[in-house]
Amino acid sequence: MRAALALGRRGQGLTWPNPAVGCVIVADGRVVGRAHTGPGGRPHAEPQALAQAGAAARGATVYVTLEPCAHHGRTPPCADALVEAGVAQVVIACTDPDPRVSGRGIASLERAGIAVETGVMEREAARDLAGFLSRITQGRPEILLKLATSFDGRIATAGGESRWITGPEARRAVHAMRARHDAVMIGGGTARADDPMLTVRDMGAERQPVRIVVSRGLDLSLTSRLAVSARQVPLWLIHGPEADGARIAAWKALGARLIACPAEGGRLDLGAAMARLGDAGLTRVFCEGGGALAASLLGAGLVDRLAGFAAGMALGGDARPAIGALGLETLERAPRFALEETCRIGADTLTLWRRA
Amino acid sequence: MRAALALGRRGQGLTWPNPAVGCVIVADGRVVGRAHTGPGGRPHAEPQALAQAGAAARGATVYVTLEPCAHHGRTPPCADALVEAGVAQVVIACTDPDPRVSGRGIASLERAGIAVETGVMEREAARDLAGFLSRITQGRPEILLKLATSFDGRIATAGGESRWITGPEARRAVHAMRARHDAVMIGGGTARADDPMLTVRDMGAERQPVRIVVSRGLDLSLTSRLAVSARQVPLWLIHGPEADGARIAAWKALGARLIACPAEGGRLDLGAAMARLGDAGLTRVFCEGGGALAASLLGAGLVDRLAGFAAGMALGGDARPAIGALGLETLERAPRFALEETCRIGADTLTLWRRA
Repeated sequence: MRAALALGRRGQGLTWPNPAVGCVIVADGRVVGRAHTGPGGRPHAEPQALAQAGAAARGATVYVTLEPCAHHGRTPPCADALVEAGVAQVVIACTDPDPRVSGRGIASLERAGIAVETGVMEREAARDLAGFLSRITQGRPEILLKLATSFDGRIATAGGESRWITGPEARRAVHAMRARHDAVMIGGGTARADDPMLTVRDMGAERQPVRIVVSRGLDLSLTSRLAVSARQVPLWLIHGPEADGARIAAWKALGARLIACPAEGGRLDLGAAMARLGDAGLTRVFCEGGGALAASLLGAGLVDRLAGFAAGMALGGDARPAIGALGLETLERAPRFALEETCRIGADTLTLWRRA
Repeated sequence: MRAALALGRRGQGLTWPNPAVGCVIVADGRVVGRAHTGPGGRPHAEPQALAQAGAAARGATVYVTLEPCAHHGRTPPCADALVEAGVAQVVIACTDPDPRVSGRGIASLERAGIAVETGVMEREAARDLAGFLSRITQGRPEILLKLATSFDGRIATAGGESRWITGPEARRAVHAMRARHDAVMIGGGTARADDPMLTVRDMGAERQPVRIVVSRGLDLSLTSRLAVSARQVPLWLIHGPEADGARIAAWKALGARLIACPAEGGRLDLGAAMARLGDAGLTRVFCEGGGALAASLLGAGLVDRLAGFAAGMALGGDARPAIGALGLETLERAPRFALEETCRIGADTLTLWRRA
């Protein structure tokens, strides 16, 4: 199952709206098939692994990170394929909360006399598949917020200089993280200040993540690097009701996808915005700030994981904070996270936190 | 030498103004003596280890973390004691920059026909003895700045609530750090806000570190916990020229030691203040903030090491920063630190940095 999980992770960022599943088939102690969900979500992992195994699949044990599908979608049901191949046993990490599958995949297998075991390395699998599970159960993608700061939590000097606080190894790790997500998201302030491309570079990426900018008033430059590359790499713009019709039309003409969202008390309803992203099929969103968007997401309880890179420099209380105002009076109301891991990345540290 | 270094570290915080030295004597592959500098700096490590070894010291090898002293101070020279005991070889980690010793200890030993090796694990020893070395070479103690913050670098909510951001394990680690320092130092704002004791608790401490408050105007409560305990645990107050004579007298009457310092442009000259602490014998100072003192020390280039505890909560840009304003326009001018180590402490992280 560990091998199946590792295979599954290779598909992260590439398979949305489908989950990135891994599958390993073992016959007589030998691996006869191994596969993960293909780019764009098809083919599924199981039929690919079965094709590799061929006749060896008969009587074999199949390790799969998610319950095999039982419904006729754009591919025939994987549970049927396993039955036809004559496998003896199927070991499953996570059951599928998708109501079209939930339990039906397992029932199909058992009806055919296949021994089914579930819950093997379920916790690990649930972490890897968290984006898919979040979309099914909460209707929105899993959101990872990245902060790259001085050790006192600052993303730029008071004068606005921000390149570079963290080192090349950390920046490379950020590109690797982008590659494993369906989309990269920033706020309008960061888009204006940094004029970024938000693409995955120097990673041999097969597919670029969708680039998302959250900008209530859509006050973004129509000649920015994001704008001029909108036909090459998907660009989605989340805006509020007040966004000007002419601007919306101009962005559409550039090739961007516009996502209108309601506002509440002068602020975008980010819960609704994230639900729109879930509707659009996204399962894993990587947010790179800035401070205002980070604060809004944290305040709305929408941050599932945090990745904090910190560099060995102090910028002081007058420099720009990584997280904008949260308006907390008491510690009790602070958004809390549990530590997953802390390690060194080049000259910087990387700490991963998960919502507590 | 590794064992000698470990022994030496046991004396940290207890031996000032003397260095915390470790000594191990080995005869015929057996440890026959082991000691570290005693509380208050006497006895030195070498005579204690020689007394344990007795006749076994003849022909033995002595591992000592700092060059043995050669001058008649309050104890007879350790180099002479080693010669008299008839040891065959002395292995030294660090030579002593103290002009009364520098090279003379080694010369004494060699004159007596003892084989001397130097520079063994010198880097590790220089780290352990950094406070002593700093006092001799720079005339001021080594300063470690501790920050205990949310992961976005905040020490209190906008409303001022700060207890507790980090967990019990981190707070216990702070007490262990206090115990290994000669003094604990805070700014006046923290003294007023927290009314702390600054003592080492629940550690079986043999000796409490000196407590230091930096307060230009000496506007500190005469009924605070620090004030009323000034006769039990040393309390030193660093103040500026404008401090009121009556307040100075009141603090003296309470048992505090007053250290007057010059000011420059309305700010205390912290370089001069730290030199006063060096004159007073301190070698290792543990600064616990707050933000204004942290910023002043960083701005003056007086922070040698940083210990950052970070908790899994976000407090936002409107909460109180761990480091006050530094007035940096460009990244180039930021105080920089090299990563030593990052690890988990309970639910929090601890990252240690050293001045780059």
